[in-house]
Order: sequence, then structure tokens, then C-alpha cells
Amino acid sequence: MALFDFVDNEKLRSQLIFMVECDKVKSIFRRTLLTDSSRQENDAEHSWHLALCAMIFEEYAADEINMLKVLKMVTVHDLIEIYAGDTFAYDTQAIASKSQREHEAADRLFGMLEAEQGEEFKSLWLEFEECKTPEALYAAAMDRFQPLIHNYMTDGATWKGPVTSDKVYERNAPVKSAAPELWKVVEGIIESSVTKGILKR
Amino acid sequence: MALFDFVDNEKLRSQLIFMVECDKVKSIFRRTLLTDSSRQENDAEHSWHLALCAMIFEEYAADEINMLKVLKMVTVHDLIEIYAGDTFAYDTQAIASKSQREHEAADRLFGMLEAEQGEEFKSLWLEFEECKTPEALYAAAMDRFQPLIHNYMTDGATWKGPVTSDKVYERNAPVKSAAPELWKVVEGIIESSVTKGILKR
Repeated sequence: MALFDFVDNEKLRSQLIFMVECDKVKSIFRRTLLTDSSRQENDAEHSWHLALCAMIFEEYAADEINMLKVLKMVTVHDLIEIYAGDTFAYDTQAIASKSQREHEAADRLFGMLEAEQGEEFKSLWLEFEECKTPEALYAAAMDRFQPLIHNYMTDGATWKGPVTSDKVYERNAPVKSAAPELWKVVEGIIESSVTKGILKR
Repeated sequence: MALFDFVDNEKLRSQLIFMVECDKVKSIFRRTLLTDSSRQENDAEHSWHLALCAMIFEEYAADEINMLKVLKMVTVHDLIEIYAGDTFAYDTQAIASKSQREHEAADRLFGMLEAEQGEEFKSLWLEFEECKTPEALYAAAMDRFQPLIHNYMTDGATWKGPVTSDKVYERNAPVKSAAPELWKVVEGIIESSVTKGILKR
């Protein structure tokens, strides 16, 4: 039986199917552990936490930002991983194919919606990806800062292997420009982690 | 060692500790199953899904709504369950003590933040709870509609036991006033569930 076959409104039906398809993001697991180290975090939880962080730390945003756009952006930014999978930030090989995989995923996923709304959602994702507007930069800063805090709480759980402090600084660069006060926290965490021996110089 | 002891800015330090405390909402599990029935959903995933639904279904809102307020509200609406726990919507006994437990939890949780921001977060939660403003009504409609869709996808997983169609109609009442077009979906799901024998009349 087709899903929602009792709904006559075709547009609404496609929205309901999209809503159900997006439920799959709750099963896309990231390398990041929950702060109590009990298990890996999934994309839905991560996206929610970014929205909360965006609210908590708004006063530190370097630029005037439209918070509505930020919250929409963080809510949809990882949906494409339903098809493209989570690419670990420090996996150089996977990152080479990331952009193409994610663009294809975006067309497939947002194409489920009626054209205008699909374009709106895709634009939000694309703006986040391109990381140029004040809102995208602030959203990106949250996207780097949140897992950094989780690493702080879990003794650098995702910093095993070839990850060095230089790479963590580079990864967190958006925080420096988008929320300078939080950059001091980034530095504090990275330096104390090197001192504690849980992050290589 | 105290958390974030290297952060001099006391306000920022309390925000970081709050952000970490809120991570616990990822471990508060609801009765609702994921749409693929694989496991129960937690509050962080649920809150994220409400934000997404609020965006998807915005055009069906009966009133003019401030979407920024809606997104903030759904992001924080379940945080108090970190201390108060999840109260199953159809558990009459637990609902009797719900309000007091949740108000105490709100004071404890939002009291971790500096006064002005703590009040702002608490107000968002309280506005959602009181369910009177157009934004709170629309947010409540999403809060009822999303688990209804999950029940549709999981053959009424949370409708076992004493739950009847009357109670499900009553629970979903905010959808009728806040998003009438979606009410047709509510009716379609409840009636077809009764017909299929997965929901008692």
C-alpha cells in the first residue's frame, strides 16, 4: 500500500513522505560520542544540539545574523547524509568525493518536495555548504564547536589516529571569525588536550 | 577538575556547562518508535524533527506565526525532561504530577544560565506549555502530529493498552485549530487505524 494514499492533496502527500524519509537521519551515526561517552551521536541529535548552541551563544556572533536562517540551516544541513553518509572530518580520502556525493544526495532528497519548497530547502543546505554568508559562517562555527566540546568531554574520542592539533585548529577556523570569544575556548581545549597527551602536536 | 576551568568569562563558562548538561536529553527516550520501528526515539531527535516539520508544514499554519519563535520553542520544549523524565501522553497517573515536576525541573535547568538568558529560555518553555499564543499552538500541533505519523508508520506502536481513538483525537486537538489542512491527515490516520484494528474505538 502506498504511503498516505488517503491524502488527496498531492503536495501535502509529498511533504508527508519527505518528513518520513528524513527520519532516517536519526540512524546516521557520527564519530562523535555523547558527552557521557555512552555511544555515538547521530545526525538528528547533532543538528538539534547545533540549534540549541546557536541560541545559547548568539551574543558572541561577530556579525549581525538572522537567527531564523541559522536555525533553519542547522536543521537541514545534514539531511543529505541520508544518502551520502557521514564523512569523517579528518578522513582525507572520503573528503575528496564528498562534494559530488552530497550534491547528488541533495538533488535526490530535496527533489521529493514540490519544486519551490525543494529549492528553498536546497538553498539552505547550499548556503551552509558554501560557508560565505554571516549566517552560514555562524552555523559552521557551531558545527565545529559542538563536536569540539564533545571531544573535550570524552578525552578526545575522535582524535585518535592521525589527527594533530594543527588539523583541529584548521577544522575550527570558522569559530575564530564567526565567534571570537568562543575561539579562546577552542584554544584552551586544544592546548590543554595536547598537554594532557590526548591530542598530538 | 572543574569543567571548563580555563574559561575566565563566568557567563560563558555557565553557558558551556549548560550546553553539556543539555546533552542528557539525547538519553531521554520516548514511547514513540522511529518510523522503521528499529528503536525508541529520544527527546533530542524528536525536537529536531519538530523543527523540520514546522518548516515543512508552515504554509498550513492557520495564523500568522513568528517562525523564529516556533523553532526556538521546539528546540527547548523537552529539555526539562532531563530532570522530570518523559511523561507518556496517555499515562493519566503520571500526568497528575507532571506540571509540578516540570516546573521544578525548569527552575533547576534554566537556573544554570545567567539570569536574563535563563529567563528567556524559561519563557520559551512556559509559552509552549501554556499553549495559548499562535506560535505555541503551532508548535504543539507539530508536537502531536509528528508522533502520530510515527504511529501511522509503526502500526500504532504506542496505542497498545488503554488508548482509544477518542483519546488520540483529543491529544491531537491542537492540530485542528493550528493547521486545519493537517487535521484531515489526523482523521485519515485515526479512522484507517481503527479500520485496520490497530486502534480501539
